[in-house]
Amino acid sequence: MGDPGLPKLQFAPFSSALDVGFWHELTQKKLNEYRLDEAPKDIKGYYYNGDSAGLPARLTLEFSAFDMSTPTPARCCPAVGTLYNTNTLEAFKTADKKLLLEQAANEIWESIKSGSALENPVLLNKFLLLTFADLKKYHFYYWFCYPALCLPESIPLIQRPVGLDQRFSPKQIQALERAYDDLCQTEGVTALPYFLIKYDDNMVLVSLLKHYNDFFQDQRTKITVGVYDPCNLAQYPGWPLRNFLVLTAHRWRGSFQSVEVLCFRDRTVQGARGTAHSIVFEVRLPEMAFSPDCPKAVGWEKNQKGGMGPRMVNLSECMDPKRLAESSVDLNLKLMCWRLVPTLDLDKVVSVKCLLLGAGTLGCNVARTLMGWGVRHVTFVDNAKISYSNPVRQPLYEFEDCLGGGKPKALAAADRLQKIFPGVNARGFNMSIPMPGHPVNFSSVTLEQAHRDVEQLEQLIESHDVIFLLMDTRESRWLPAVIAASKRKLVINAALGFDTFVVMRHGLKKPKQQGAGDLCPSHSVASADLLGSSLFANIPGYKLGCYFCNDVVAPGDSTRDRTLDQQCTVSRPGLAMIAGALAVELMVSVLQHPEGGYAIASSSDDRMNEPPTSLGLVPHQIRGFLSRFDNVLPVSLAFDKCTACSSKVLDQYEREGFNFLAKVFNSSHSFLEDLTGLTLLHQETQAAEKVMDPQKSVSLSVQCLAPGSQDPLSRVLYELSMELDIRSGT
Amino acid sequence: MGDPGLPKLQFAPFSSALDVGFWHELTQKKLNEYRLDEAPKDIKGYYYNGDSAGLPARLTLEFSAFDMSTPTPARCCPAVGTLYNTNTLEAFKTADKKLLLEQAANEIWESIKSGSALENPVLLNKFLLLTFADLKKYHFYYWFCYPALCLPESIPLIQRPVGLDQRFSPKQIQALERAYDDLCQTEGVTALPYFLIKYDDNMVLVSLLKHYNDFFQDQRTKITVGVYDPCNLAQYPGWPLRNFLVLTAHRWRGSFQSVEVLCFRDRTVQGARGTAHSIVFEVRLPEMAFSPDCPKAVGWEKNQKGGMGPRMVNLSECMDPKRLAESSVDLNLKLMCWRLVPTLDLDKVVSVKCLLLGAGTLGCNVARTLMGWGVRHVTFVDNAKISYSNPVRQPLYEFEDCLGGGKPKALAAADRLQKIFPGVNARGFNMSIPMPGHPVNFSSVTLEQAHRDVEQLEQLIESHDVIFLLMDTRESRWLPAVIAASKRKLVINAALGFDTFVVMRHGLKKPKQQGAGDLCPSHSVASADLLGSSLFANIPGYKLGCYFCNDVVAPGDSTRDRTLDQQCTVSRPGLAMIAGALAVELMVSVLQHPEGGYAIASSSDDRMNEPPTSLGLVPHQIRGFLSRFDNVLPVSLAFDKCTACSSKVLDQYEREGFNFLAKVFNSSHSFLEDLTGLTLLHQETQAAEKVMDPQKSVSLSVQCLAPGSQDPLSRVLYELSMELDIRSGT
Repeated sequence: MGDPGLPKLQFAPFSSALDVGFWHELTQKKLNEYRLDEAPKDIKGYYYNGDSAGLPARLTLEFSAFDMSTPTPARCCPAVGTLYNTNTLEAFKTADKKLLLEQAANEIWESIKSGSALENPVLLNKFLLLTFADLKKYHFYYWFCYPALCLPESIPLIQRPVGLDQRFSPKQIQALERAYDDLCQTEGVTALPYFLIKYDDNMVLVSLLKHYNDFFQDQRTKITVGVYDPCNLAQYPGWPLRNFLVLTAHRWRGSFQSVEVLCFRDRTVQGARGTAHSIVFEVRLPEMAFSPDCPKAVGWEKNQKGGMGPRMVNLSECMDPKRLAESSVDLNLKLMCWRLVPTLDLDKVVSVKCLLLGAGTLGCNVARTLMGWGVRHVTFVDNAKISYSNPVRQPLYEFEDCLGGGKPKALAAADRLQKIFPGVNARGFNMSIPMPGHPVNFSSVTLEQAHRDVEQLEQLIESHDVIFLLMDTRESRWLPAVIAASKRKLVINAALGFDTFVVMRHGLKKPKQQGAGDLCPSHSVASADLLGSSLFANIPGYKLGCYFCNDVVAPGDSTRDRTLDQQCTVSRPGLAMIAGALAVELMVSVLQHPEGGYAIASSSDDRMNEPPTSLGLVPHQIRGFLSRFDNVLPVSLAFDKCTACSSKVLDQYEREGFNFLAKVFNSSHSFLEDLTGLTLLHQETQAAEKVMDPQKSVSLSVQCLAPGSQDPLSRVLYELSMELDIRSGT
Repeated sequence: MGDPGLPKLQFAPFSSALDVGFWHELTQKKLNEYRLDEAPKDIKGYYYNGDSAGLPARLTLEFSAFDMSTPTPARCCPAVGTLYNTNTLEAFKTADKKLLLEQAANEIWESIKSGSALENPVLLNKFLLLTFADLKKYHFYYWFCYPALCLPESIPLIQRPVGLDQRFSPKQIQALERAYDDLCQTEGVTALPYFLIKYDDNMVLVSLLKHYNDFFQDQRTKITVGVYDPCNLAQYPGWPLRNFLVLTAHRWRGSFQSVEVLCFRDRTVQGARGTAHSIVFEVRLPEMAFSPDCPKAVGWEKNQKGGMGPRMVNLSECMDPKRLAESSVDLNLKLMCWRLVPTLDLDKVVSVKCLLLGAGTLGCNVARTLMGWGVRHVTFVDNAKISYSNPVRQPLYEFEDCLGGGKPKALAAADRLQKIFPGVNARGFNMSIPMPGHPVNFSSVTLEQAHRDVEQLEQLIESHDVIFLLMDTRESRWLPAVIAASKRKLVINAALGFDTFVVMRHGLKKPKQQGAGDLCPSHSVASADLLGSSLFANIPGYKLGCYFCNDVVAPGDSTRDRTLDQQCTVSRPGLAMIAGALAVELMVSVLQHPEGGYAIASSSDDRMNEPPTSLGLVPHQIRGFLSRFDNVLPVSLAFDKCTACSSKVLDQYEREGFNFLAKVFNSSHSFLEDLTGLTLLHQETQAAEKVMDPQKSVSLSVQCLAPGSQDPLSRVLYELSMELDIRSGT
C-alpha cells in the first residue's frame, strides 16, 4: 500500500566487530564455565555514533561482553544479545538460524506490544551470536544477527535525508545538544538510544519514549523522533532505527500522518563537538492494522564475501604465542573435567611444587609427564653431566648437550622444560647428595661442602610439596628420604631393574604437633589392630613403609665395585617411560584423594572395588614386570627398625642435624644398624637360623616387613621386593 | 761381586704409546667380545729403532694390537703382550701387579732356560697391559709393564758406549748393514730383535741366536751381540737389551769373559740410511751361578708424574662426537646382553625399519622408545602441524615449533630424532591417509591426490618392516591395515582412551605363495581345532585378529560430529608414554621370537609359564587400565567378516587396487559391510534379538569375535574392547 512514487527508506546494517579480547574471554568461559553447556548465554555489546566518516556502523563485542554488569563505554549505547556457542562445528552449521531469529524477533515484538520497550528501549537493540570455538587451532566460527522486524510494506520517504544543519539553525542545533545532554544527565546515562523531539525556532525539547503522551499532548500531524545512529552514511540511517519505526508505527500511528526522524550523530572533530552532520528525513509509516502476530524479521549478517554464511577468524597467529601456549596446555587438562572426570581437582595438580632428585632416565620422563599434567613448578637436582649415551633414553637432552664434556644435567633439564613450555617455572641445581658410606671428612673442605649440600637439600625439600626420588643408587635416596620424612613431605620413589620396576609413595608420618590431627583423620587405629584379620587391608598412609623399610641392611657405597652393566642402568628402554609415567600418575591419584598422603593404600585386591578417587586406586607400591606385561600393587608397613624413616633415625636427625648425618656418611653400615636395632635383629636371626631350616629363615625376613606374618602373599611380595631392590637405578 | 771401580750399565725404559685407535678397538672388543670376561688376552705391539733423536723409546699399541696375525709394520720389531682388562676400577686398582709381573718374568725365564727364546727371541720382548675402560665417560685407565729380569748384580761397563762410527770404519758399517739386511731377507722379516756379530777389518758377519755354537765355533774371550735398539740416547741402551743380557749370561757365560754390545739404530736422515749413530760398548757379565729360580724382575711403568701409578687417558673430547654418540648408544644395549639376556638378538631390533603412521602423542613416544632400543631407521607420516598444546605431551616438539602456524609434525619429528642422535636415519612425510567415509571424489584433483597418497603409502609400507598405527581416528587406520595385511608386514597398533589403552599386534596372514611355508611353520592346525577345548590357547600369529576384527560396523567419518573433548585426545598424560613404550616393547618381543609375527599369542594365563622368548611373553593385545594400574592380555581370532583383514577385502584390494579403495573412501559404511557380509549378520542379529533377551544379544556379538563362544571371559574381553575402541585416539 506504500506510495509507489516516493523513494523508499533503506537502512545500513551493522557490521559485527568482535574484538580479540572477546574471543580470548570466550575461550576462558568455554574452558572454565560453559564446558559442554550449549545453553544460550546473555552477552552485551555496544555501538557508537561518533565514529569518523568512512567507518561502518559497528556493533562491538569485547572482553567485557560476558559481564552484564559492566558499564557501557562512555557515549556509547548498549546492545544486549544472546550467545549460542556450540560444541561442534557440525552443530554450528546445522543450527536452526531461522528459528533463532524468529524467537528473538518475537521477544522484540512482545516488548513493543507490552510497552516494556518504551520503558527500556535497549530491548529493541537485541542481537544474536552463534559461535563455534575450535580451541585446538584458535579458529573461531561465528554468525552474527541483529534481528529487525519488517513493516508489512516498504517505507516511503516524504523528505529525503538532509544534514541537520540544513534543517536546523546553529542555535537550534546547540539547543538540541544541550537538551539531549541534560536528559542524559537526568537519566544517569551517557547516551540515549531513542528519544522524542519537539522544536521550534527558539527551542528544542527532548524526552523519553515513555513520556510520549505527555510530550506530544498537542495534536499534530507530524512527530519528530531521535535515534542514536551509528551509521556514517549521508543518505541512510543505521539499523537501530528499524525496530524503533515498528514500535512507532504500532503504538503511535493513530496520532500522526508522518514521522520526522533525526539520526543523531555526535562526533568530535578537531576538539570540537559536532552533531551538524546528523541527518534528518521524513517518512510515512503504514497503519499497523496488521495482526498481533510477530512480523517477519531479517538480520543474519552477510559474510566477508557478501553471501549469507558464517565468518571465521583465525587467531592462532595474532595471539601472544606464550599466552597461547599456556591456554592450549590448560585446554587438554580442562577437557578431562568436562565429561570424563567432572570431580577432578586440577588445581591440586597444577599448583603442586615438585622436586626431582635425579635428572636421568627417570627424572626426564617424570618431568615430561608432569608437564603433561600442567605442573608449573619443577626443580631438578643432579650432579652428572650429559654423556653421549643419554639423549636416546633421557628425553630432555640432545646430542648438542653432550659436546664439550656435556652440560650439567640439572641445568640442561630445566632449560629444556622452558623450551618445551615457556610458562613453566623450572630450576636446576647441579649438586651432590651426600650418602651413607661415602665419607665426607677426608678434608675440612669436603665436610663443609657436604654441610652446604645438606642445607641446600633441606631448603629445597622444605620449599616443595612432592619429592621424587629418581636416582641411580640406593644410598643416595637415604638422605632425602630422611629429610622428607622429617618434614612430612610426600615422597614418590621410582627405581628400575632390567625389566622390573618399583614405583611407590613413602608412608607419610603423622604431623608432629598433635593439634594438626585434622590432616590425618579417622585412622587412629592402634598398631595392634593391624595384626588381626587381613594384614594388608586398610593400612592408612601414616603406617606405610618407605623405600628402606624392606631392607635389613643399612645403605652403603654400592658403586665401588660394580661392573659396567651395574653402573649404568641396563634396562629395557621402555621401562623408564612406564615407571616415570606411573610415578606421576601415582602422585596425581594421591593428590586427588581427600586425605592425600594419608590415604589408605589400595592393593591388588581392591581392583574390583569402588575406587577411592575419581581417578581410581591409590596404591602404596606399583611393582611392574615387563616380561609379563603385569603389575602388582603390594602394600607394606613401616618397619620400626627402618634405617631411614624409623623414629630412632628421625629423632636423631631432628636433634643433632648435620652432626648425626656426618656420622652416617662416614660410618660403615653398622652405625645405622646399631642405632635402629638391626644389629640385634641380625644376631637373633642368625641364632634362629641355626635351629631352623632355610625356608623358615625367609619367613623370618618377612617378619621384618610385616611382623608376625606367615601369609604366603607377603612372602612372595617380600621376595619380589628384594629382587627389585638389588638392582635399583635411574 | 761387580767391580766397584767401573761404571754400571743402565737402561732406558720403554715409554708406552697407546694409540687412540687402540682404545677404540678395545671399546669394541669389550662391548662385542669380552663383555664381562676378565681373562687375559694376547695382544701385540711393536717398537722401532729409526726414530728421530729426542723421541723416547716407545712401545706402540694401535688399532691392530688385538689381531695377533697382523703383520708387524715395516722395519719394526714385534712385542707380544698380555692384556688384563678389568670390569671395574676397583679391580683395576686392586689387581696384584707383583704377581702379574712375577708370572710374566717366569715365562721369560722359562723361555731362556728351555732355549725357546733362542729359537724365537720375541719371547724376550713380553709386556703386560692392565686396563680399565670406563666406557660411560671414555676414560681409559692403564698401567703398562715391560718385565725385565734382573741379574744378581749390576753390570760393569768395561768400555763406555761410543758411536758405531768410532769403532767401525765406514766400510765395516756398510758391511754390517749389508749382512743385517741379508739375514732379514733370508729370514723373511723386516727386523731382527737380537743377533750375533763377528767382524774384522774386512768383513762383518751376523747370525741368529740359535746358531751361537756354529757361529762362535772358534774360542774367543769376547763375543759381540747385536740388539735392535729403540733408544735414542747416546749413553744408554734401550730396555730390550736387559732380558737378552740375562739370556747371554745364562746360556753362554762359560765361553767368554766379556760381551761387546752393538745397539743397532737404523735411521733415515735426509733420504740416506744411517746406522753410524748406533752405539757400542763392552760389559762383563756375571757368571750365572745363581739358582734355577726365576730372578727378580722389574718393569711397571712410571706414570706421567714420575711415580709408580697408573695412567689415565680421557678420550671423550678427541674422539669424533658423532662416532662417540653411536658407540655410546650401542653400549647400553650391548650391556643387556652381557649378563641379563645373553640370548638377546640385538641385530634383529637395531636393523628393523619402522614406519610410524601418526606423529602425535603416541608417535613421539614410540619414536623415543625406538631410539632407546637403537633402532636406526624411523619414518613418520602425519599431515598435522604442531599446535601450542602439543609440546607438553608430544616429546619431540618444543614451543618454537609451534610459531608461525606450526611446523608439519612429520618433518619436525624426523628433524628432532637427528638432533637427539645424529646416527639415526629419520624421514618425515607430510601427507594425508585417505579414509573410508571421507569422500575423495569431489573434484578430479582430490581424487588424483588420494591416488598419489595411496601409492606413497603403499611404497612406504613396502619399504619398512614394522608398521605402527598411531593415529587419532579409527578410520585412518583402515587403509594402512589393509595394505600391511596384503604385504604381510608386522603391524603394531596403539590407541588411547581416557585412562585405558590398547596395544596390539595384528595377525600376520600366511605368506601368499605356498612355497614360503617355512615362514609360518608348525601351526597348520585346521580352524575347526580351535573350537575345541581352550578357545584362546595356542592361537598362532596368522589366526590373530586385527584392530577391526572386533568391530561389527565398518569405519567411517568419526570426526564430523565430535565435541572438543572427543576431537583431541583427552587422556591422562602418563597414558601415551606407557602405551607408546609398550608398543615398542611388544614389537621387540615379537622380533625376538623365532617365528616373529607368526608366534603363538601369549595370554594372561601364560604369566606363570615358561616364557616363549628371552624377554618374556609375546601377547596379542595388551589392554591397560590406569585407574587400576592393571593390564590384561586378551587374545582374539581373526574375523572372517572383518572390514580390513578378511580375505574378501584383501582379495578385492589386490585385484582392483585404487579403484576398490576409492569406492570405500566415497561410500557409506554399507559398502564394506555388504562386501564382507556384515550387513547380513546385522540382519540376522536383529532378527535374533526379537526373540532373545538383551543379555543373549551380547553373546551374539561375542560370536562375531569368537564364533561359538559362550565363555564368560571372552564376553568380558569383548565388552572391554568395545569400551576402548569407541575412544581411540592419539
